[in-house]
Parts: sequence; structure tokens; C-alpha cells
Amino acid sequence: MIRARTLVATLAALLVTGPVSSAPPTMAEVLEASTPADWRRPAPEDTLYLDLASGRVVIELAPAFAPKHVAHIRALAKAKYYDGLAIVRVQENYVVQWGDPDAADEGKRRGTGDQPRTLAAEFARPIDGAPHFAKLVDGDVYAPEVGHSQGFPVARDPKAGRTWLAHCYGMLGAGRDEAADSGGGTELYVVIGHAPRHLDRNVTLVGRVLLGMEHLTTLPRGTGALGFHEKAEDRVPIRSIRLASDVPAAERSALQVFRTDTEAFRQLVEARRSRREPWFIEPTGRIELCNVPIPVRSAKD
Amino acid sequence: MIRARTLVATLAALLVTGPVSSAPPTMAEVLEASTPADWRRPAPEDTLYLDLASGRVVIELAPAFAPKHVAHIRALAKAKYYDGLAIVRVQENYVVQWGDPDAADEGKRRGTGDQPRTLAAEFARPIDGAPHFAKLVDGDVYAPEVGHSQGFPVARDPKAGRTWLAHCYGMLGAGRDEAADSGGGTELYVVIGHAPRHLDRNVTLVGRVLLGMEHLTTLPRGTGALGFHEKAEDRVPIRSIRLASDVPAAERSALQVFRTDTEAFRQLVEARRSRREPWFIEPTGRIELCNVPIPVRSAKD
Repeated sequence: MIRARTLVATLAALLVTGPVSSAPPTMAEVLEASTPADWRRPAPEDTLYLDLASGRVVIELAPAFAPKHVAHIRALAKAKYYDGLAIVRVQENYVVQWGDPDAADEGKRRGTGDQPRTLAAEFARPIDGAPHFAKLVDGDVYAPEVGHSQGFPVARDPKAGRTWLAHCYGMLGAGRDEAADSGGGTELYVVIGHAPRHLDRNVTLVGRVLLGMEHLTTLPRGTGALGFHEKAEDRVPIRSIRLASDVPAAERSALQVFRTDTEAFRQLVEARRSRREPWFIEPTGRIELCNVPIPVRSAKD
Repeated sequence: MIRARTLVATLAALLVTGPVSSAPPTMAEVLEASTPADWRRPAPEDTLYLDLASGRVVIELAPAFAPKHVAHIRALAKAKYYDGLAIVRVQENYVVQWGDPDAADEGKRRGTGDQPRTLAAEFARPIDGAPHFAKLVDGDVYAPEVGHSQGFPVARDPKAGRTWLAHCYGMLGAGRDEAADSGGGTELYVVIGHAPRHLDRNVTLVGRVLLGMEHLTTLPRGTGALGFHEKAEDRVPIRSIRLASDVPAAERSALQVFRTDTEAFRQLVEARRSRREPWFIEPTGRIELCNVPIPVRSAKD
């Protein structure tokens, strides 16, 4: 909504690093002032590369929230289970989903080797022992508390003592059938629309896309019900899914992710709650979980 | 996240119209039970067709919320101002924006004829005299009250006596420069990502996409800052923007939109708040403004 003619001025403003002001910083100023300690390298064994003809989607897995699913997806990736399977569903304002097009046909579907086909659901976990939680102060429509843990958007119910990953844009989940325990990771989906938070605690979320969302969001929508592709030729083949730890160092996408357990992140959230950039007339003063950006940069920066 | 193998069963469930149950209906049941009075035909003078090579995007304008902007956009469309201009910006998880690539160059930019180039902002309007408001009961992170008016997602501040359109997925806004009154409609954008509600009351919203979002969301992302296209050849040309009332009847997209001022809509919202479809394990019991669907169907249905 910013107009082209103000772009140059806006970019210039982003780059200004003048004398320290007493006013709270903008996001650009928070990032400019950040130190190496404010960034982290996702562990290679928690980083998944989904390689399509159009490019690479980099995903960070969340073992603290779905340990069995993450272990299972790691094992399936190591066994090259996903290679040559396909994106079978692209539903506008909802999800991109991939897996075995023959999953419903026990005679034709791909085997999972020594891995189980399904796992018990991991919809939520105890708050006790959960990673650091940076709570947002503006509340949430869906949960008693929301915030961030290890770079993931999470919700909490302190009375029930439970916490769970939240269905924000870019989150990765494990598709399932009607039974709660019918998922596991052979079929995966990424949220490509407005956060479908009603899926929280209905499906096991397993990670988040760090880079390459555009390779999923720009895919042609499926013409069948729920955005499933009706013809085999409409499906987009998956070249491979690999753990970064199984890829030669030279082929890895070296990324850094902004930490969410730091004073710098607290400042970033404040900068996004109350917008001080000159374009804003109404600074808002509030922020909703899925509007908090988690910056990602090249590890060479 | 539903798996392919349950699709047939799910579709069958959607089509079931058994004996009337005492349980609250699902959304499919609400729609199945709806009568012609639960649907409306958008006025042709409030319906805008954005025609691209890939197809048509149908937009409903909101004169009750931005009367001067809507009148201005109508006049610009009648004058064929937009024809041959281009989509100049596609930013991942944010907006698609179109206008005059030469807008910043007073010597080269397209003239607006007898129309002004800019208008005073219409960020909000008085609640007094506003159309019917179907209030949601689950609250909102950004505004004291939210709900729907005439098919649009809206927010309200009863103490201030003001109401405004909300930046949900598919909403159409009028881009502006840094000055509040520097917009007007020569540059327009559509939200293609998670609702950027911090833009509420910062930009004048003027309507909502009813059909054809996929022609915008699947466009290649701009490679420049803020998703602006850097090369002229990357811009997507606009064939034309027309009011439905200026298009021969045979060329119109005859649509019906689910009314939001009815008992049927109240039931639809309830059906989405508490999901009774068999796939759902946790029915949620809450809904956020931008997750409420406003069904659209062919007028032939």
C-alpha cells in the first residue's frame, strides 16, 4: 500500500543509523543494532530442504513440540521416502500439501520401510519443561496465552498446563485422516493463507518454513474439492526432501534466524506493536501472534 | 491437512441432507438449508472487474465505508484510466498492488482527466448511520469490536463512535504516499497474506475480492524491496478494469454473496466457531474475524 514513489525515501529511512535516540527503535533499528548473539543457526538435523524444480523451501523442525513426528520425518527423509512424490493439493488461502498420490491404495502406495506409517498425535505438550516462552501482551482470540518459543508461534493454556504450536502462515503440519492418530508425516502441509487457527490441537504441527514460501504460494491452485489436483499431470513433483545434516556443506542454505529469547526480540515485538516508521499515521499499539515477523538472514551477513 | 484418502468420505458428508437434527448445523448444512433470501446480488455499480490475461478478479466496492473513494474509482474505471497499467508489486504474505509504473514521473504518468489525483482519506466512518453490524462474540486483538457489515469484515470503537473496514485476506485498499491524503484510487492493492491489521485506519479500504484471488496470489513475487518489480517486463499488464454496470449483461460474472444480516449467517458463524464436522477433534469454540467465510456462488445456483 506504500506507493512506488515513496519507495526510495522509505529505503533511505531504513538505512539511517543516526545518533542514538531516546525514542523506542523501529524494527530496522533493532536489526541494525543486533549483535551476533541475537541470531542463531538452526541445527542441521532440524533443518529440512524441500527441493522443487522451481527452487528450495527451507524448513525448521520443532522437536521440542513434536519429538516423535520430527524423528519420524527425519527417518523418512533419510530413507528418501519423499523423493519423487508430489504436491497433491493447493487450496487458495489455506494449504499446500504433499505426499504419495497413491496413499489411499495399499497395493500401489510407497512403503515406509522399517518406519511406521502413522504415529500417535502430538497436538500439545506440557508447559513444564517447555522451551523459553516470549509472551505477547495483547492477547489472542483462540488461546489464553500466545507468544514465541524457539522461533515458533505458540499458544498456551496455563490452567491445563499445556502448550502447542499455532497455525500461522508458513507452519508445517502432518496431515491425518479422521482418526487422531492417523497422521505421522508421510503427508505434510504448509499454511499459505490467513492463519487457520481452528486447526490448532487438531493436527500435529512439526515445523515452520524459514525461506522459499514463494515456491509454494505461487503454485497453481488445485481444481478439485479442497484444492486437490484432479489430474496426475497437475501435481508438482518433489525432487527430494533432505535433512541439511545429510547434505554436503557446500549445498546447504546457510541461514541465521533471529532469536526469540532475547531483549532484542522483545524490542522487535515492541517496534511492531507501535509503528514509528513515518508512513504510519495510526501506530496501532497492538500485535497479533501471526503478525510478528521472525527475521531470517543469510549466515554470511 | 485432510488426507487424500478421506476426501471422498468428506465430500459425501458434505452432501448428506438427512432428517433434521437437534444439534447445531455444520456450515454445509446451513448453506444447504439457505433460501434465496439469504443471498444477495452485488449491485453492478458496486462490482469491479479486474481483467488480466490469466482471468478475471471480481471485486465488490464498499460505498458505505469509503463513498468518495468508491465514486472516484468508478469514475476512473469509466474513463478507462487503469487499462494498460500494470501490477507493479507482489510481496509475499502481504499485498499485490497495481497502478501506473510512471506514477512518480509527473511528465510521463497517465493523466486523470477531470478527476482529482488524490482524495482526503476515508480511514473510518461514524457508527451512527452505518449498515447492519453482525458482531462476533470472541473479541479481537486489534479493536474493541469486530464483525461484518454488508459482507465486509469491519471493526468498531463504540466509545469513539467510529467503524472501519478491516484488513483481512482479499480486501482492496487505495495505496498512498506518506501524507494521509495522498491516496485516492489511482494505485490499488489487495491483501494476499495473513491479515495485516496494523494497516487498519492507516489506509483507506474500498472493497473486497469476491472471486479470482488465485489470479493475484499465484503471481511471481517482485524481486525488489517491498516486492516491487525491478524490470518493466516483470510487471503484469492490466487489460482493463470495468464496472459490471458498464459491461454487457452477457459478459458479467453473475454472482450471489451470502448475506451477513440474517439468521442464516448467524448460524454459519456458529458452525465455524464450533466445528461439528467429524474430522475435528477439538471443535475450537471460537473464531477470529478474518477466518469467517463469506460464501459466494454463481447466480445460476
